[in-house]
Amino acid sequence: MAKTDWKAEAKALKKKVKELRSRLDQSPSVGKPAKGAKPVSPLAPKDGFPELPRIAGVEFAAVEAGVRYQNRKDVMLVRLAPGTAVAGVFTRSSTRSGCVRDCQAKLATRGGTDSAAAIIVNSGNSNAFTGKIGDEAVAAVTGGVAEALGIPATRVFSSSTGVIGEPLPYDRITAKIPDLIAELREDAIDMAATAMMTTDTFPKGAAATIQGDGGPIHIAGIAKGSGMIAPDMATMLVYIFTDAKIPQATLQKMLSRNLDATFNSITVDSDTSTSDTLLLAATGQSPAAEPKGVVAKAFETALQGVMRNLAHQVIRDGEGATKFVEVRVTGAESDADAAKVAFSIANSPLVKTAVAGQDPNWGRIVAAIGKSGANADRDRLTIRFGDILVAEKGWRSPKYREEDGANYMLQDELVIAVDLGLGRAKRSVWTCDLTNRYIEINADYRS
Amino acid sequence: MAKTDWKAEAKALKKKVKELRSRLDQSPSVGKPAKGAKPVSPLAPKDGFPELPRIAGVEFAAVEAGVRYQNRKDVMLVRLAPGTAVAGVFTRSSTRSGCVRDCQAKLATRGGTDSAAAIIVNSGNSNAFTGKIGDEAVAAVTGGVAEALGIPATRVFSSSTGVIGEPLPYDRITAKIPDLIAELREDAIDMAATAMMTTDTFPKGAAATIQGDGGPIHIAGIAKGSGMIAPDMATMLVYIFTDAKIPQATLQKMLSRNLDATFNSITVDSDTSTSDTLLLAATGQSPAAEPKGVVAKAFETALQGVMRNLAHQVIRDGEGATKFVEVRVTGAESDADAAKVAFSIANSPLVKTAVAGQDPNWGRIVAAIGKSGANADRDRLTIRFGDILVAEKGWRSPKYREEDGANYMLQDELVIAVDLGLGRAKRSVWTCDLTNRYIEINADYRS
Repeated sequence: MAKTDWKAEAKALKKKVKELRSRLDQSPSVGKPAKGAKPVSPLAPKDGFPELPRIAGVEFAAVEAGVRYQNRKDVMLVRLAPGTAVAGVFTRSSTRSGCVRDCQAKLATRGGTDSAAAIIVNSGNSNAFTGKIGDEAVAAVTGGVAEALGIPATRVFSSSTGVIGEPLPYDRITAKIPDLIAELREDAIDMAATAMMTTDTFPKGAAATIQGDGGPIHIAGIAKGSGMIAPDMATMLVYIFTDAKIPQATLQKMLSRNLDATFNSITVDSDTSTSDTLLLAATGQSPAAEPKGVVAKAFETALQGVMRNLAHQVIRDGEGATKFVEVRVTGAESDADAAKVAFSIANSPLVKTAVAGQDPNWGRIVAAIGKSGANADRDRLTIRFGDILVAEKGWRSPKYREEDGANYMLQDELVIAVDLGLGRAKRSVWTCDLTNRYIEINADYRS
Repeated sequence: MAKTDWKAEAKALKKKVKELRSRLDQSPSVGKPAKGAKPVSPLAPKDGFPELPRIAGVEFAAVEAGVRYQNRKDVMLVRLAPGTAVAGVFTRSSTRSGCVRDCQAKLATRGGTDSAAAIIVNSGNSNAFTGKIGDEAVAAVTGGVAEALGIPATRVFSSSTGVIGEPLPYDRITAKIPDLIAELREDAIDMAATAMMTTDTFPKGAAATIQGDGGPIHIAGIAKGSGMIAPDMATMLVYIFTDAKIPQATLQKMLSRNLDATFNSITVDSDTSTSDTLLLAATGQSPAAEPKGVVAKAFETALQGVMRNLAHQVIRDGEGATKFVEVRVTGAESDADAAKVAFSIANSPLVKTAVAGQDPNWGRIVAAIGKSGANADRDRLTIRFGDILVAEKGWRSPKYREEDGANYMLQDELVIAVDLGLGRAKRSVWTCDLTNRYIEINADYRS
């Protein structure tokens, strides 16, 4: 028997260990992810949290209150100067949280803007479906902030995000109100964005500046959201600030009419949250006059841009997402039909798993169109992946080559375009793929 | 520097390789599952395919035609004796397949029952969204069977299940018609059930016998289905046979009115198929007279039992399923509201992943109720896991202990019961959990 060359064998084994380790790293983890190991979504903006302009009249603070998470900031406070108009949109869930109901009641009073206002947000506990003691928690937190800042409670808005059905340990929050007030700073919006995070893997911010009549007008917004994303009026927690001079009624109208093209056009998993809240605050402290005419139009375009940017970031942080997908429906008979087809495709588990598998499986798109309930005619449909014509006239296009589709699916950002060939209505919605990681996060995380 | 002991190092590395290999084996596979490795669903009936009664006037055959799968039977034929009444229900998908449209057209003619009839089914290719050449394929297959059996083409029904959008190589099927006819036997229903399977892990059958007026009446049915399950009139491929004497119009009414409580109450993944077909054939060869009065009632109850049994087996074979879940909604204001709440829970990815994780996460049930669009009042809701009272009066019940919920979730079969406390309408639907295996199957399988 030849003598074993242990050195050669050891070297070969080392190579094998390296190979196995790399395969193991690439295979999905089973069960709980390691503590502290929270990889940032591969679809996160490459440059990290953006530089946001300070908005005159808006200050931020965030502290560790230990509501549920340890060793991280989990409560944030925003102080808005006197004169600030606040508009809002909320989830239409019939089991929406106490904070949401409280915000809705306060906005309905259309209270004056003479006094300052505030927004207080905690992560780790959504205070949803917690009955009367949940309502008491909202009153304690907003009342505590109102008293400490010397403003009416009707000008204090709150949001809570995290586990449903657990009593909110609100004394941990009220105990930190003095610290929060002491920390208020104009340049701390990034800390506020971070304090709201739950299963989010990155904080989300976006901004715009337009030239007003007499000076610049700034918009800066932050958002949180990753799972339970299928907004039905607004999404998750979103706060947008501007120094524009805009009356409350105008602000509310502007906000509402830009929802369908932004937050109401995203879906991660078709599950609508009990806490969706979007607040838009205008301090009026820009030197520019109230936007009118072309300036108002430019402002609204910029606002919609910020809203869409934040909405897209929520999808880019979709739980387990590896692909950012735009579903673009055109040629529908009505707006309602365009939306039905777009959401039927975007919410189809079979389409979403095919995208995860990088499979150009257009048959599942056909099935999703078919089940949508919208008028559709097999022989007038056109389906494209980006610019690639896939199917038309009731069947696969003779020009379509499967390898072109397969190559296209390797990209991080995909467009699935469907033309129904029946009318002029259209709708674009944004979604992500459905991966093992989504299952792992949600078989484990208690939302 | 000490001399390296290569032998010791090689031994240590060998151990490491063994450990890494074992970890890799335990981690879920990425990409394609190993060929031939098709484990049977853990929820499959323990006793395998049931003993089904022969139905006088019905014969079965199955052969290997190589439509897509190799080394397995993939086409089945059923011959129905002259006098057989045929009823059917089908998917309402606007992109439904050519076979479905053809069956619908043929049933609409309400053609006479003087001649024999036939059903031919292939797996591996659904012939859906294949345009005019798909319709030609249906005509070639059903026309071929009609000619070979000497019966009118209007009495030959067909189904195809499998990949969407690929041309059906129908010559492979027509070439096998003589072999199919030569093999026809009354006792081969199990072979027919097996030949229809795609991602199914077990063939599905159910039966019932009742005492008629003058002799026994038998019912035997088979089904296939595992993914793309959210029926909208019928589900997947289901064929039920009886020797009862029942006129076509009566048979059709009986079938239609039992759908909501059976196939229209199951969902695996909210994705509706393009091929859903349920045919019910009554040969009239039982010695018993046409069922009337109590016998008709007993027959309908038995028929509903067979339909529900098959529907449950489809869920038990849900792609990746490890739990069989009944969502039982009571106390709704209307039937429509009861269905909205039941399907909202049963289709919620967050509820389904929590069930997969054996997490008694009732907060997600609250969210699913909230988003359903049905009337619901937080303070009148009651939620139970089986008999365990979980939540009432707007919050977690003071009697509920998390460990009771956690223990309950360990079971294979779960009941999620929701009482809305608003009215008397109710609906039960059946679903399964959402696991990594669903993602693996569908990121890979081309449906």
